[in-house]
Amino acid sequence: MNHAVLLMHSADKQGVVLEISKFIAEHKGNIIELDQYTDTENKHFFMRVKWDLADFTIDRAELSSQFEAKVVAQIDMYWKIYFCDKPKRVALFVTKLSHCLYDILQRYQSNEWSIEIPCIISNHDTLRYIAEQFGIPYYVFPITKENKIAQEANELELLKKHNIDFCVLARYMQVLTDDFIAHYPSRIINIHHSSLPAFPGAKPYHSAFKRGVKIIGATSHYVTADLDEGPIIAQDVTKITHTDSISDLIRKGKDLEKTVLSQAIWLKIEHKILTYKNKTIVFR
Amino acid sequence: MNHAVLLMHSADKQGVVLEISKFIAEHKGNIIELDQYTDTENKHFFMRVKWDLADFTIDRAELSSQFEAKVVAQIDMYWKIYFCDKPKRVALFVTKLSHCLYDILQRYQSNEWSIEIPCIISNHDTLRYIAEQFGIPYYVFPITKENKIAQEANELELLKKHNIDFCVLARYMQVLTDDFIAHYPSRIINIHHSSLPAFPGAKPYHSAFKRGVKIIGATSHYVTADLDEGPIIAQDVTKITHTDSISDLIRKGKDLEKTVLSQAIWLKIEHKILTYKNKTIVFR
Amino acid sequence: MNHAVLLMHSADKQGVVLEISKFIAEHKGNIIELDQYTDTENKHFFMRVKWDLADFTIDRAELSSQFEAKVVAQIDMYWKIYFCDKPKRVALFVTKLSHCLYDILQRYQSNEWSIEIPCIISNHDTLRYIAEQFGIPYYVFPITKENKIAQEANELELLKKHNIDFCVLARYMQVLTDDFIAHYPSRIINIHHSSLPAFPGAKPYHSAFKRGVKIIGATSHYVTADLDEGPIIAQDVTKITHTDSISDLIRKGKDLEKTVLSQAIWLKIEHKILTYKNKTIVFR
Amino acid sequence: MNHAVLLMHSADKQGVVLEISKFIAEHKGNIIELDQYTDTENKHFFMRVKWDLADFTIDRAELSSQFEAKVVAQIDMYWKIYFCDKPKRVALFVTKLSHCLYDILQRYQSNEWSIEIPCIISNHDTLRYIAEQFGIPYYVFPITKENKIAQEANELELLKKHNIDFCVLARYMQVLTDDFIAHYPSRIINIHHSSLPAFPGAKPYHSAFKRGVKIIGATSHYVTADLDEGPIIAQDVTKITHTDSISDLIRKGKDLEKTVLSQAIWLKIEHKILTYKNKTIVFR
Repeated sequence: MNHAVLLMHSADKQGVVLEISKFIAEHKGNIIELDQYTDTENKHFFMRVKWDLADFTIDRAELSSQFEAKVVAQIDMYWKIYFCDKPKRVALFVTKLSHCLYDILQRYQSNEWSIEIPCIISNHDTLRYIAEQFGIPYYVFPITKENKIAQEANELELLKKHNIDFCVLARYMQVLTDDFIAHYPSRIINIHHSSLPAFPGAKPYHSAFKRGVKIIGATSHYVTADLDEGPIIAQDVTKITHTDSISDLIRKGKDLEKTVLSQAIWLKIEHKILTYKNKTIVFR
Repeated sequence: MNHAVLLMHSADKQGVVLEISKFIAEHKGNIIELDQYTDTENKHFFMRVKWDLADFTIDRAELSSQFEAKVVAQIDMYWKIYFCDKPKRVALFVTKLSHCLYDILQRYQSNEWSIEIPCIISNHDTLRYIAEQFGIPYYVFPITKENKIAQEANELELLKKHNIDFCVLARYMQVLTDDFIAHYPSRIINIHHSSLPAFPGAKPYHSAFKRGVKIIGATSHYVTADLDEGPIIAQDVTKITHTDSISDLIRKGKDLEKTVLSQAIWLKIEHKILTYKNKTIVFR
Repeated sequence: MNHAVLLMHSADKQGVVLEISKFIAEHKGNIIELDQYTDTENKHFFMRVKWDLADFTIDRAELSSQFEAKVVAQIDMYWKIYFCDKPKRVALFVTKLSHCLYDILQRYQSNEWSIEIPCIISNHDTLRYIAEQFGIPYYVFPITKENKIAQEANELELLKKHNIDFCVLARYMQVLTDDFIAHYPSRIINIHHSSLPAFPGAKPYHSAFKRGVKIIGATSHYVTADLDEGPIIAQDVTKITHTDSISDLIRKGKDLEKTVLSQAIWLKIEHKILTYKNKTIVFR
Repeated sequence: MNHAVLLMHSADKQGVVLEISKFIAEHKGNIIELDQYTDTENKHFFMRVKWDLADFTIDRAELSSQFEAKVVAQIDMYWKIYFCDKPKRVALFVTKLSHCLYDILQRYQSNEWSIEIPCIISNHDTLRYIAEQFGIPYYVFPITKENKIAQEANELELLKKHNIDFCVLARYMQVLTDDFIAHYPSRIINIHHSSLPAFPGAKPYHSAFKRGVKIIGATSHYVTADLDEGPIIAQDVTKITHTDSISDLIRKGKDLEKTVLSQAIWLKIEHKILTYKNKTIVFR
């Protein structure tokens, strides 16, 4: 786990791979994962590189500044370097449904994921008992039209205090304000219970039932100011038939929601997602 | 193959299964497939029954009238009886893309399907060579705004002459008029190259690419007066990634289109589809 | 929920549907689900019928004896009648892995399933804390070669005492003896972490990795005397690539195991499974 | 399409990416696709790089020798360079089933794939009419135990004469000798009609039916001396139920076979497959 990951994107030009691989090799780093993608339409270059730090000659504390001085100085880019052994700090937002929450907490507790969950935030008290089962602080911020901005300020303070890396809306039934979202760009993951763009809004299973589709889906995406319009991270579907009632759709959909949300969280934990022009690049 | 199939639906009431199974058993028919569904919301009853005619005591020529006299007289219903050894007569409509057409003709030629294809109809001459490869008459009806109604009349005459049971739009790039459709209710199958209701219209792969979805789909449906809004028969999807260009989406989508259209045709051949309130009941 | 379900199979002969539907209709039952299947090779008939008891003229206490007197007396069959509002009593067996257990308990606690779980049985103390989170009695029966038969006797006594309808092996890492299995025929559901028949045995993910497959699966099945050879209830798969290590396979596989095991339990709860000649008929 | 692709693998060591990207950048090549994988268990390094030749300063004719002199001289590796605008020359082997053949020829004829098909080889005359439909020479080499080696010699001569890049066994029902296979290592693609390793051999659908599986699959793989044991390139599955007879399995399986075989051919055309220790690395 003594690895570093670079996520970067830049205008496409010759020599990007060369400069970055030179920086790593000259300081005795050994590349173990490199996935690169060029958007030929927009002439834009994306890359994720993971390398072994065992023999690396730059101190962790110096790595980012050295990279900036030697590489970014020559090639203008968006970039960020992560250390794989540093667990991400994740805040969970929930309302009343427990299936995604249990799914996440089971992975957390069994060490499937190396993360820390300093807090669970909700607008209702309903799921407090689950937080208590797992010994995680549970904070309730009831939301009304009147207090929304004030409560979001309280939430933001809490997130800041806990040094949260990213937020997960695990069937959180509140729309966040643009201001809140702006504090965590590409750092709030939502699960929508349909195959976006089909069936946005609050009751997608009812809409799917009414239309008589033979497939339902779930979509995990980054939250942006446009509701249900953020960059899509992961999607999956399941087949249904005319015999499935709305409650069957809800039941089958929950299984999708759990899986698709957890896929997105996993990709985030592994530093595998870049966003660009409202789309994601998901490295493998 | 000496089997009959009854497709029926009616208001839900006690004794429907009883009356129909009594009719079959009293005339020494042996039920080999029975699939029933009740729409509890609309209180409506749907059933497909297949039975062996080997010892059946009613002549084929008398079957429908006897069923009407003995069963329908007591229970008001939509109903139709089919004989499984009578091949369906299918007309294919194409424009310029060959993938669905070849897929259908290969199944036809290898006797995977027991159908007859008396004619292939197109608004272009492009695919005539394929019809000739398979020895099937190919009719071209070029369509303009001005001649559309006249050309559809010519097409309808041709369909009537050939005693066509149902039509398949195998990537036929023309919108049919309501009048044409009214001649073949629940008897025109279209393939749409997206997961309806997402991405209706002419360029769904471009829309999917622009939205950055991680899954694309195809939808076979009955053609109704509302474009892309007819009852859905079958759907399937495939996963895509950011590395897939629009041309990759088109390439992957073609595989879906072939499979999903052929599934719908198979279901129609096997008398497995009922429609009700713009949805399908697909028996198995 | 005031419904009865009949599950039956018999030699194929004319009139089975008639006799059963007559019994139901004559006593003012309204059929709401009927799914029938004939195995034409073995000339065997299978059926599941669900009917509404609202106006039914036979008392619940008399239903089975009346059915036997009026229907079974005429047609020899395997049969069983269930009442849908009577929750099944389920015993869970676990060892050290928590993902299936949490998945089941979340569904139980959120009333997705109408069941009772009177006990969780394990050969290790490891997961006791989860049972305690949910307030369910947890019994540990450590198993050695020497004490296996004695411990199984203790387990059987416990199951009997709790009036258990069926058992679920949620990644229980012990092979049950034939004698134990014989007490619960078609009533013990196991999850195997591969696409049986590929990769039976204890380390299927290692075998899959070694073979370089591009798909891994999970299989839920009834436990029979032949290990990993019982009737298959449900299967699902997920795609993998060369980039997936064994630990990735295990991680992805767990998601399959949860879903596929819960599908099988759902089918069992809904009285949708019949077994015949080591295969399942899964009604819909 | 004025692109080159390098496929390479070597022992894992620092600086491989650097040396190769330096070679490309110093000669004014612009990398547009780079996918890298390290097998950490075997300490082996795999990479595929595609770069634009528009401004590249080395002549095509000199490219391989220069790469060898400047890069391979320093880093011992397996390597091969391809030009993307040079169509692969493909030989098809068939017996009596037409579905894969039509699927391939439709893609070929519609220019979905940029390949040349100089010959179709068969042990039967059955499918000659299809070759004639598409104007492709069809060669029949009937195989008996006695003449097998002689006939394979004739086939090899034909392949050599036509300068074939790789062979596709599109449901070719003959086992090739080890000697034949040795002439085309990792250059013969087969489609097996099951999810290998489950159900190898000649009648996999019968075996799947007998075992009562709920999923069937298809597997495309390179042919090696061990029958059905070669490196797997692509796999896919479809769900089945108890209602599917063996003929339904065969029908559904054909759709899988077509798709999975064509996926493998596409990957081969795009130079996306490396093999190592009987497994494939499939770049994306």
